[in-house]
Amino acid sequence: MQFDHAGIATEDATALAELFVDLCGVDVAHEETFDGMQVVFLDFGNGYLELLEPTEGGTIASYLEDNGPGIHHLAFETDDVAGAIERARELDITPIDEEPRPGAWGHDVAFLHPRDTGGILVEFVEH
Amino acid sequence: MQFDHAGIATEDATALAELFVDLCGVDVAHEETFDGMQVVFLDFGNGYLELLEPTEGGTIASYLEDNGPGIHHLAFETDDVAGAIERARELDITPIDEEPRPGAWGHDVAFLHPRDTGGILVEFVEH
Repeated sequence: MQFDHAGIATEDATALAELFVDLCGVDVAHEETFDGMQVVFLDFGNGYLELLEPTEGGTIASYLEDNGPGIHHLAFETDDVAGAIERARELDITPIDEEPRPGAWGHDVAFLHPRDTGGILVEFVEH
Repeated sequence: MQFDHAGIATEDATALAELFVDLCGVDVAHEETFDGMQVVFLDFGNGYLELLEPTEGGTIASYLEDNGPGIHHLAFETDDVAGAIERARELDITPIDEEPRPGAWGHDVAFLHPRDTGGILVEFVEH
């Protein structure tokens, strides 16, 4: 697997995107409204930052309430999310998603429970 | 700039490395003792996970006490850390490191204050 993106919980995806464009010289690769969130992908050439701004309640809105803004998850790219979930189960890692589900940018995704992966919320993503 | 690594605070770098080797099929790229930490870099081909296990007190030990294990920072690769610090200052982002300092794996690094970067602890790294 390769690194795909770091997911960021933010209260203002547009402002944070502008900051990283100015700071790091990166480009906005994709923007969409998805699952009650404004989502902005910043292209670092070898991976993305996925900025997640909730526009209604949901997991990111709850995360912001509990933790404030910051790094929410890490995503790794695979061509077989279902197989990656099965591999996780073999390693006694609990999947949050029992099977691949539609994610942002039209990708198939699945998350694993962070208690089983060193406190890291891990996402598998298939483009 | 490109993505370089995500830094992970952990109480057991060796065990967490084994888990990601098994889960993601990645390799250990580098291990060292640095600045009171056991540090393991996992190679995802297009970037790294940097596992940070404190062996004495310090910022990662304090982070673990306050937050538990998980994603600690994101690092972006540049060939000019000093210039990146200057660019941050121009954007009213407070550097934690006023100038580049030696980091793990012989790299030059500098961190920025997360309050100015959307709650993300940002590191610049020059190989």
